[in-house]
Amino acid sequence: MNVPLSATLAANEELQRRRHAGERVLHLAFGEAGLPVHPALSERLSAASGHNGYGQVAGVPVLREAAAGYWERRGLRTDPDLVVCGPGSKSLLYGLLLAIGGDVVLPKPSWVSYAAQAELVGVRPIMLPAPPGEGGAPDPDLVAEAVLTARAEGRTVGSMLITLPDNPSGTLVRPGTVKRLVQTARDLDLVIISDEIYRDLVHDNLAGYLSPADLAPERTVITTGLSKNLALGGWRIGVARLPDEAHELRALLLAIASEIWSCPAVPVQQAAAYAFTEPEELRDRVVASRKLHGAVARAVHARFIRAGAAVSPPQGGFYLYPDLGHLRSRLGIRTGAELAALLLDQYGVGVLPGEVFGDDPAAIRVRVATSLLYGDTSERRLTALAAADPLSLPWIAGALDHLTEALSDLAAPRSVTNLRRRRSLVPDPVTG
Amino acid sequence: MNVPLSATLAANEELQRRRHAGERVLHLAFGEAGLPVHPALSERLSAASGHNGYGQVAGVPVLREAAAGYWERRGLRTDPDLVVCGPGSKSLLYGLLLAIGGDVVLPKPSWVSYAAQAELVGVRPIMLPAPPGEGGAPDPDLVAEAVLTARAEGRTVGSMLITLPDNPSGTLVRPGTVKRLVQTARDLDLVIISDEIYRDLVHDNLAGYLSPADLAPERTVITTGLSKNLALGGWRIGVARLPDEAHELRALLLAIASEIWSCPAVPVQQAAAYAFTEPEELRDRVVASRKLHGAVARAVHARFIRAGAAVSPPQGGFYLYPDLGHLRSRLGIRTGAELAALLLDQYGVGVLPGEVFGDDPAAIRVRVATSLLYGDTSERRLTALAAADPLSLPWIAGALDHLTEALSDLAAPRSVTNLRRRRSLVPDPVTG
Repeated sequence: MNVPLSATLAANEELQRRRHAGERVLHLAFGEAGLPVHPALSERLSAASGHNGYGQVAGVPVLREAAAGYWERRGLRTDPDLVVCGPGSKSLLYGLLLAIGGDVVLPKPSWVSYAAQAELVGVRPIMLPAPPGEGGAPDPDLVAEAVLTARAEGRTVGSMLITLPDNPSGTLVRPGTVKRLVQTARDLDLVIISDEIYRDLVHDNLAGYLSPADLAPERTVITTGLSKNLALGGWRIGVARLPDEAHELRALLLAIASEIWSCPAVPVQQAAAYAFTEPEELRDRVVASRKLHGAVARAVHARFIRAGAAVSPPQGGFYLYPDLGHLRSRLGIRTGAELAALLLDQYGVGVLPGEVFGDDPAAIRVRVATSLLYGDTSERRLTALAAADPLSLPWIAGALDHLTEALSDLAAPRSVTNLRRRRSLVPDPVTG
Repeated sequence: MNVPLSATLAANEELQRRRHAGERVLHLAFGEAGLPVHPALSERLSAASGHNGYGQVAGVPVLREAAAGYWERRGLRTDPDLVVCGPGSKSLLYGLLLAIGGDVVLPKPSWVSYAAQAELVGVRPIMLPAPPGEGGAPDPDLVAEAVLTARAEGRTVGSMLITLPDNPSGTLVRPGTVKRLVQTARDLDLVIISDEIYRDLVHDNLAGYLSPADLAPERTVITTGLSKNLALGGWRIGVARLPDEAHELRALLLAIASEIWSCPAVPVQQAAAYAFTEPEELRDRVVASRKLHGAVARAVHARFIRAGAAVSPPQGGFYLYPDLGHLRSRLGIRTGAELAALLLDQYGVGVLPGEVFGDDPAAIRVRVATSLLYGDTSERRLTALAAADPLSLPWIAGALDHLTEALSDLAAPRSVTNLRRRRSLVPDPVTG
């Protein structure tokens, strides 16, 4: 249960320690959007600082109406009464798993918290790999058999959770796959939970985005928030769009919400209501963010490709999920965790091993988050946002050079000295 | 699970409907502190509006240190590393029940969310009445037998949860009772969760306050927040002080927190850090609030006494828990819910029936919250806060008159007309 926390905290603490000790570190381990609050949102939060009543558990009406408008502009007719707000979409996902009940089908790998939440709720995650070359959704061909097997064992399976676009892989499931998943969910009577928190950060061809709610509004819950598109992670605000006519699910979710978190902070709700109306100043900010995330993710992708990694091109958000299995024997490593330890110890590069996301520990895969490269200060981050060529800014170029050196050295033939240094990181199978 | 939400929402919606229809309603059904945000806190929230990073799951260090100082000033040595913040103490209570595990001993009646949270977590609440004349803690004489019986049935019992001072009764458990509860908890190896969110609102003799943490720091968790003393309910901020050396419980609680809510809104954490340092301007506000709550609660208490109710004098917070059992046969009512319905329907007075708090449905007891009588506007509320004699303010005097009339009429001999009107509210046992 506490593995994900430990893994991320341990990486972060080690990176902080090295930074304080004057070492050059490259923080690629955290999924924070890494950009400043837009001043219009700060102003709205300040203006709402007198709001101290509890308000409605589902969220203040102005926020639910704004969120409904957000989805209407994306082609989804939305009843504000079927919008439920929470202190982050994470809370809503937890509440949904509890409310829907039964085991949940997840992609493997997938965001650390899905499986951990399932464990807390007391249900079993059924983790299935994505179709080849895709990420964020289980292969539809595998779902039916897995669900029917679980049901034959007397288990209940209630939902399937997908991420469009995906964390950790940074890819977006193809429309044809979404169609097949929807058909599978209908055949098996599963609720589809579609985590679309990175939707506005699809780098290109946003118009081609297909949500399962477009095809199966009767069984799809969409969750999103402002943590990624507007970088408001620490403000804790998320929204869920429930299936058409899902009044029973709504009542259950609200009962759960009322007993665990009551409502998101009301001043934050007021500012979020403004954000979900998508005024021009915030649309511009999201467009600039999307461009920056895409440019840096593609630059990092190119460096992993040059090092011989197998890695899908990034399509959304700020993640990559390279497979460096070709270096397994050359580096003498046996797991993704050993690769992450090696990158941190020898090169000061912090990433997370794939096993944290439910992947096979023996796979030499790591998740690379590229959003903390934009600078250490608000000034640098705003400069990066505004830059025509952010890759040429010295702090971003320097970070990319750091990564290039690390990956070149990693892929280069190993000297005896290097081998000896490296070996000390790998526990001996005999002595433990 | 959704009963508490339904009960409070139904009461609120009915009151809103009647208010909009031009009826005179008296809202005694909600536990909101009913006072404005102190401007110093609004300013701190505004100043922190640029904070958008996730921060630490346990809360930002400045908040944890300030909360430790808050407890130090109350005679409790506190390690900031054993302080955990959450989006409301409600969230922390949920996380604690999940982390500690096992059934939980609760007072009967007690705050609606304790038993509901236990149900969500999948453990059983063991509800035991308070010692005669007290509220907020189970009678220590009953705890050992109940816990040993549950254990003999193969169940695990992990904790005892008490409320000092209490919601719904508005009373404070005697120090002697706290001592016996602590001894019982030691004998049975139970964690004591002490919900002290109303501590700063004890009306008199604050110096005589005894927390179980004073006696058993090795097994007591204290939870509190700023919803009551500083009326910041809608800001969602709570803090827990874990037992000495409880590093394992801390790790578990943080793992749970990291998977459900991540952290409280960071701008709110920054403002809360200021609040917990207790600067003079905020101490003055809490003192004024305490006086106002006490004065109005005592005035409402006097009116229930005059109507012949059995009701303990209020000692803290803004609640009363009158027993109008003497009117049972005269009014032809059989439950506290029927009394609440009668008060709402005939007199526009909204209260909550005792059964919502786990009390015997057949008891003619209701919870009366007195904090929404201070006025409908910030101006009136500030006037009430500053008034030497708030009871003489026309809007408060008017509300008290409304209550006096309702209670007088209730206690008066019933006319046939009254009886006929009233009867329509009570479902006929034959026709349903």
